[in-house]
Amino acid sequence: MEVITSSDDGGAVRTKEVKAFGTAAADANLQQMSIRRREFQVQDVEIEILYCGVCHSDLHTARNEWHGTKYPCVPGHEIVGKVTGVGGEVTKFKVGDLAAVGCMVDSCHDCDYCKEGLEQFCAAGNIQTYNSHDKYIGAETYGGYSESIVVTEDFVLRVPENLDLPATAPLLCAGITTYSPLKHWNVGPGVKVGVVGLGGLGHMAVKIAKAMGAEVVVYTTSPSKVEDARKLGADDVVLSKDKEQMKRYKGKLHFIIDAVSAQHDINSYLKLLRVDGSLVLVGAPEHPLPVAAFNVITHRRTLAGSSIGGIKETQEMLDFCGKHNIVSDIEMIDINQINEAYERLLKGDVKYRFVIDMQSLKSG
Amino acid sequence: MEVITSSDDGGAVRTKEVKAFGTAAADANLQQMSIRRREFQVQDVEIEILYCGVCHSDLHTARNEWHGTKYPCVPGHEIVGKVTGVGGEVTKFKVGDLAAVGCMVDSCHDCDYCKEGLEQFCAAGNIQTYNSHDKYIGAETYGGYSESIVVTEDFVLRVPENLDLPATAPLLCAGITTYSPLKHWNVGPGVKVGVVGLGGLGHMAVKIAKAMGAEVVVYTTSPSKVEDARKLGADDVVLSKDKEQMKRYKGKLHFIIDAVSAQHDINSYLKLLRVDGSLVLVGAPEHPLPVAAFNVITHRRTLAGSSIGGIKETQEMLDFCGKHNIVSDIEMIDINQINEAYERLLKGDVKYRFVIDMQSLKSG
Repeated sequence: MEVITSSDDGGAVRTKEVKAFGTAAADANLQQMSIRRREFQVQDVEIEILYCGVCHSDLHTARNEWHGTKYPCVPGHEIVGKVTGVGGEVTKFKVGDLAAVGCMVDSCHDCDYCKEGLEQFCAAGNIQTYNSHDKYIGAETYGGYSESIVVTEDFVLRVPENLDLPATAPLLCAGITTYSPLKHWNVGPGVKVGVVGLGGLGHMAVKIAKAMGAEVVVYTTSPSKVEDARKLGADDVVLSKDKEQMKRYKGKLHFIIDAVSAQHDINSYLKLLRVDGSLVLVGAPEHPLPVAAFNVITHRRTLAGSSIGGIKETQEMLDFCGKHNIVSDIEMIDINQINEAYERLLKGDVKYRFVIDMQSLKSG
Repeated sequence: MEVITSSDDGGAVRTKEVKAFGTAAADANLQQMSIRRREFQVQDVEIEILYCGVCHSDLHTARNEWHGTKYPCVPGHEIVGKVTGVGGEVTKFKVGDLAAVGCMVDSCHDCDYCKEGLEQFCAAGNIQTYNSHDKYIGAETYGGYSESIVVTEDFVLRVPENLDLPATAPLLCAGITTYSPLKHWNVGPGVKVGVVGLGGLGHMAVKIAKAMGAEVVVYTTSPSKVEDARKLGADDVVLSKDKEQMKRYKGKLHFIIDAVSAQHDINSYLKLLRVDGSLVLVGAPEHPLPVAAFNVITHRRTLAGSSIGGIKETQEMLDFCGKHNIVSDIEMIDINQINEAYERLLKGDVKYRFVIDMQSLKSG
């Protein structure tokens, strides 16, 4: 059923009903629902969603753990699919192309950061793929747990044809979140990189850092992951609970990417850095992390953070992954398994990313 | 009285007795004592100490607050004086020259960091001006609260002739500790710099950052320092206890130098940084500082630390200060006032650095 609704600037916009899977409250399970998508405008690309990755942010938002969730909420920002419609001004996509959408669907295009291609830091606040204000239809944005999505061309990514499509979906968040800091901090040959935490983000960091030519040491609390880390390409693996093993790279690493979102002792990792080394957080523990001043002062070390990446850099990451044949290790699920998948996610019981086969929604 | 002692490599080294002012225990006052200095060797410069600045580190070490102090302890690492003797291989100094010594008197000369001119990060551990092992006479090093010092030429600095000599002494620690990070993080025209804490380090940071061409905002808890900050050159002053004032530069500063060694809320300062901005600690609070991950992740901000500077950079700083006519604001004291000065230091009651007129030791 077509409905005409009103955009932020007062224009009339036709919308249509689309099947989705979302939640009506923080303590409710996800279930099938209907949402409305705008019909594609002149600069829009309409995408039939084929696969959508399941990010821990989906769970945090669905359950209002970061507060500010508006319901109903349809998560999902690791989206790959096929173009089913393009507006008259669209130049980079045509019907039938593969296309992808990540964590953002728009930004102001006008601030210093947007002009630099850092839309993730848009001064006005970018429009996220879900749980943001949708200026086109004056409602909330709804994510990738749905049949289709309509996104302005500038925020749609091209997908390398040689990659396994479902396993490509997690690149749109887990991939860019690790690629961006590895690139920004000049990881490459001759650089010793520590990867803390071997989950959805960590396993991508290992693959990408190796492809960049770095030496990679994985830090994990799980003896069961040692073998896995090596298979993923790690040059060495350290059990972080073992104090003796933790001494092995003291003062020797140039860069650490820390993908642990549970509370953990950041100081024991800062001590592993060489002079001018950087530890970058891509996981966000709930409570502040105590940092001993001497651990940064004595070696001019830095503790930093990084958040996804800009659109241009996301395309660069996808092209890099295409060239190096990098995808995520995934476990495919049907949409009806999403609530169970969230429970397993909480236990770290996934290698290394759930991806929803969206065919299961269409036929459900 | 001349005494022959043994160096680490087994050689015999003549030493002589020198008047100094130091402490025999963590809870004892500083008092006059005798120490031994080596006679100058072929690569050594012997310096008659004319003035010595009083750094908070002196107090921490004298009172064993950082642990590891060996007694007797003679503090002082902001040393200026006149050359009274040079070894046969010394090429850069002659008797009668002004000379200065900072926080280090030697390093391994051989590690990657020393080769890069980063002796402050010497992998073997540099030899600090006091409370380090003195390889030449197999004892402890003694600092600048003394009549004279003998230092290998490579660690002796040239002093610009145009600067007020007593007010130059604090440049050797407070000056380089602030110059080095301002330089390393590219402070210059068009850069908005926050200086947190207006004490010995902070007031030097204001002067140096201004001379580098930056816009400088001072953060202080003391309404009484607002006027002072402006006189020192600050473009703006924010009372950090005032929540409204703290909003003024939210997301607007490129760089913050944090010179507060008391516990304080680092997150409220991280929020002032723009994307890719850095907050650098040069003060070292005793307890770890809680850092909220989101405060670094959302703007790719960095929290870093910095420690003094290398010898080449220290000379560069002195030359820069000579060129821009920058010295410390000081209060001159006699050596007998040092215990009282320490008590005043604890209360922040000094504008902005005590400097000891060492003539008072010689004539004492």
